[in-house]
Amino acid sequence: MATRPSRSLETFPNPQPGREYEIRLEAPEFTCLCPRTGQPDFATLRVRYVPRELCVELKSLKLYLWSFRDEGHFHEAVTNQILDDLVAALAPRRMTVEADFNVRGGIHTVVEARFP
Amino acid sequence: MATRPSRSLETFPNPQPGREYEIRLEAPEFTCLCPRTGQPDFATLRVRYVPRELCVELKSLKLYLWSFRDEGHFHEAVTNQILDDLVAALAPRRMTVEADFNVRGGIHTVVEARFP
Amino acid sequence: MATRPSRSLETFPNPQPGREYEIRLEAPEFTCLCPRTGQPDFATLRVRYVPRELCVELKSLKLYLWSFRDEGHFHEAVTNQILDDLVAALAPRRMTVEADFNVRGGIHTVVEARFP
Amino acid sequence: MATRPSRSLETFPNPQPGREYEIRLEAPEFTCLCPRTGQPDFATLRVRYVPRELCVELKSLKLYLWSFRDEGHFHEAVTNQILDDLVAALAPRRMTVEADFNVRGGIHTVVEARFP
Amino acid sequence: MATRPSRSLETFPNPQPGREYEIRLEAPEFTCLCPRTGQPDFATLRVRYVPRELCVELKSLKLYLWSFRDEGHFHEAVTNQILDDLVAALAPRRMTVEADFNVRGGIHTVVEARFP
Amino acid sequence: MATRPSRSLETFPNPQPGREYEIRLEAPEFTCLCPRTGQPDFATLRVRYVPRELCVELKSLKLYLWSFRDEGHFHEAVTNQILDDLVAALAPRRMTVEADFNVRGGIHTVVEARFP
Amino acid sequence: MATRPSRSLETFPNPQPGREYEIRLEAPEFTCLCPRTGQPDFATLRVRYVPRELCVELKSLKLYLWSFRDEGHFHEAVTNQILDDLVAALAPRRMTVEADFNVRGGIHTVVEARFP
Amino acid sequence: MATRPSRSLETFPNPQPGREYEIRLEAPEFTCLCPRTGQPDFATLRVRYVPRELCVELKSLKLYLWSFRDEGHFHEAVTNQILDDLVAALAPRRMTVEADFNVRGGIHTVVEARFP
Amino acid sequence: MATRPSRSLETFPNPQPGREYEIRLEAPEFTCLCPRTGQPDFATLRVRYVPRELCVELKSLKLYLWSFRDEGHFHEAVTNQILDDLVAALAPRRMTVEADFNVRGGIHTVVEARFP
Amino acid sequence: MATRPSRSLETFPNPQPGREYEIRLEAPEFTCLCPRTGQPDFATLRVRYVPRELCVELKSLKLYLWSFRDEGHFHEAVTNQILDDLVAALAPRRMTVEADFNVRGGIHTVVEARFP
Repeated sequence: MATRPSRSLETFPNPQPGREYEIRLEAPEFTCLCPRTGQPDFATLRVRYVPRELCVELKSLKLYLWSFRDEGHFHEAVTNQILDDLVAALAPRRMTVEADFNVRGGIHTVVEARFP
Repeated sequence: MATRPSRSLETFPNPQPGREYEIRLEAPEFTCLCPRTGQPDFATLRVRYVPRELCVELKSLKLYLWSFRDEGHFHEAVTNQILDDLVAALAPRRMTVEADFNVRGGIHTVVEARFP
Repeated sequence: MATRPSRSLETFPNPQPGREYEIRLEAPEFTCLCPRTGQPDFATLRVRYVPRELCVELKSLKLYLWSFRDEGHFHEAVTNQILDDLVAALAPRRMTVEADFNVRGGIHTVVEARFP
Repeated sequence: MATRPSRSLETFPNPQPGREYEIRLEAPEFTCLCPRTGQPDFATLRVRYVPRELCVELKSLKLYLWSFRDEGHFHEAVTNQILDDLVAALAPRRMTVEADFNVRGGIHTVVEARFP
Repeated sequence: MATRPSRSLETFPNPQPGREYEIRLEAPEFTCLCPRTGQPDFATLRVRYVPRELCVELKSLKLYLWSFRDEGHFHEAVTNQILDDLVAALAPRRMTVEADFNVRGGIHTVVEARFP
Repeated sequence: MATRPSRSLETFPNPQPGREYEIRLEAPEFTCLCPRTGQPDFATLRVRYVPRELCVELKSLKLYLWSFRDEGHFHEAVTNQILDDLVAALAPRRMTVEADFNVRGGIHTVVEARFP
Repeated sequence: MATRPSRSLETFPNPQPGREYEIRLEAPEFTCLCPRTGQPDFATLRVRYVPRELCVELKSLKLYLWSFRDEGHFHEAVTNQILDDLVAALAPRRMTVEADFNVRGGIHTVVEARFP
Repeated sequence: MATRPSRSLETFPNPQPGREYEIRLEAPEFTCLCPRTGQPDFATLRVRYVPRELCVELKSLKLYLWSFRDEGHFHEAVTNQILDDLVAALAPRRMTVEADFNVRGGIHTVVEARFP
Repeated sequence: MATRPSRSLETFPNPQPGREYEIRLEAPEFTCLCPRTGQPDFATLRVRYVPRELCVELKSLKLYLWSFRDEGHFHEAVTNQILDDLVAALAPRRMTVEADFNVRGGIHTVVEARFP
Repeated sequence: MATRPSRSLETFPNPQPGREYEIRLEAPEFTCLCPRTGQPDFATLRVRYVPRELCVELKSLKLYLWSFRDEGHFHEAVTNQILDDLVAALAPRRMTVEADFNVRGGIHTVVEARFP
């Protein structure tokens, strides 16, 4: 597996920081490689968060997700990594990342991680 | 982005102010412009509230939503603004506004804000 | 709007008054008139209740709902009235009435009221 | 309405009595007669229970449900009776019986009873 | 019914043991035999767990489920056995196993067991 | 059954009379009375036509369908009458009227008539 | 299997005998007995016909279908018999009868017969 | 209603002009104004064509559809105009344009025009 | 792969041999083994036929399909073999066999063969 | 855009070359790059063919589709190329390739090409 390239998530100021409200993002076009076989894996990513001072900018999120395209990642690890990266960039009040992977070997896998 | 025109929400007296009951409205025809690109955005708006003394009149709500058509608005800001405007007009016991935006750049966005 | 005709809801004794159990009724054929324009409105009515001593007889419920056909009623008021009439006739432990109205002016409205 | 024939529910020992786990059964082929008109009624029965020492044997449940075919029963009464019969046979930790009847007179009825 | 062959579940270290996150697996291709009639039964298996130190390796899970193919098992017993085997192999924080069996005799059965 | 009131269908000139193109209208809010029992019937009306010189104006179609609300009509007769009225008003190249009635007595009825 | 009781289908004059139009009826509550095992079978019946001089009266169709409730019938035979009975009573221009039976032994069966 | 602005559809050379193959485009974000009331109308546009020498460039199609946003158009006329504009720009072998408009006054309208 | 065991399809006389009517069977519980890897494959089988003198008996069809459970078969070959076996046993006027296999390697396969 | 790497499609002999039967393959995990922007595109590929002497081997088809992952391709061109490559490898009696691309710029595109 190649070294992970640097990747950045851009943010913008939360327009309503005084209110706890929720943002839900669904990206059905996530793909990376299986670290064992090198074959492509596909998933729908769902992110739900309550922002504090920052919101994630959509275009940079798209590029961030795209950056996994040529990398090998295990299902459980990549879901937790995406949560860690988003939490580091946004410092949200709460966040959930759900990765819903296509069937492999007759088994359909979903991994869901929460902060805090 | 043009100056926001004056807009008004008409109300009528709650016919049953002594009871906590819920009104749910779904408007699938919300559209405004992207403040960055000027291109149209589309959303389904869902409003849920428990009225106190006032209910929102449907026709004025339709016109109110229509008034965003030629304005530039970010997803997060416009959802909070609609909640603020409705709360200012109705002073409800509780209210939720959910804006469910069409896919842009392969990402589907929903913003949901609550009062109080 | 014409004077509301007398209408009656028949009941029968709850066959199991010692147990808290739930009865759910869905009537997709409710229609009345808009009090402003006189034009027909259509709704699906959903009633959920936990009976005490009495259950509502289905045929009389059908006739009761039919009796609104030629009357003008606002969405919020008629939903509360149906709840009031059913509570008066049945004295249930708990009851919910939900009226799910067809789209008007691009907006879909649901009103839900609960007793107690 | 004819006298109710004797009917029996067979059981087998719970293979895991030390654990609270749930069994859900759905039988879409329940039919009995309307006690007023003698005409057939149809329902989907759903049973959910947490067994104690006994589980219900599926074939005997099928025959038990079949035994209602030529009998007159009100919706509310028959749902409670099935719950009573199953509780008497199985002595479960918890049980729910839901009977979801086909539309009659434009109204769809569901009755749901719980033990304890 | 033949003697149950030895079967093993392989694991790998949880990449994020410090966080409580959930893994959901759905395997729609589970089949075993009815211990009474010897005829095939079919089910969709759903496993949900919060890992502690270990995650289940997908290929070994596929082989594990496959190992039931020629064995006779009652619905309630096999669901609890799969939960027991997975808990023994993974020592998870929490786990649920749900087996959703195809219709037999007009009745659809689901068994759901939880740890702890 | 009361005498049928006069009713009119307004038209406007087909903007593209030189081309054979199709217009499909669906009106889910049709209601009339059963001529035997006087009780309300409900249907979804579907009209498909290829215009010649005239198109039907939507608001007048709504009022036209509304005019059946207090009249008694058999399913088969009313469907053919609506086809006849529309053909008389529009002189279309081709037209189909389908009336899809709600369940009565456990039977769901659809009547479909074509011109020519 | 008991002797088949006499059963009658009532008709009424086709209100538009000069036009070829179609009537579609769906009756999801058909039940009879398996002639081998005596156990109940369930089906949804679908009838489509183009009437000549006569239409079938809905209530008598309901009673006709009900008359099979306590009789043993094979799937293929009963579908053809219903077509024969309806053709004998109505002398339609064209007719199709489709019987869609519930799953038995893991197999779902549909029989469809046409006249002429 | 304002004068219709100039609008252009860009094309690119068909990469396989020797084969008859089909391109299907669905644009759910079409909106224009009602020429009577000035209020917004919404539709999903579906275009199907077999190209000859030219294919339509997607971005220019998006801008073309966007150009109707502030104009008044009747359903039947705008569908035929879009077909005419696309045929003029592409000279396709065959083309169908379908405009599926949101419910107005309880009626859902679809207009479908074909070339040649 | 083991030698294919003898298997038989039982028939019964067509109750209506003078009419061309269709029988449709769907069996979602077909399973065999992959001849390359020995791993289980799963499919839904759909059979449609117009009988001549014979109909297939359902229980024997179930056993026939079951007989493939421990055998290795390629998708294309097994579908054609089932068609050949059914045609040999029934000598139908027409028959179609469709085998709809579960996803393998991210690809979903359906094979459909017809007689004659 | 990089030079297209060599890619091969493996075949196996049609087990039933004397019969015209159809094979349908659906691969929801096709991805390539947009030749203009370099950003990823995603599609579901559907292949339907009637084989002559050869069938496509599934694993090689998966690898063949995977080989487009890092290449730039226009929608119309890549669909025709896949058809050409499959026709060259299989020499089928008939074949259809349909590529169903994810929404870009609010427009959903499907390209369908046929041989011969």
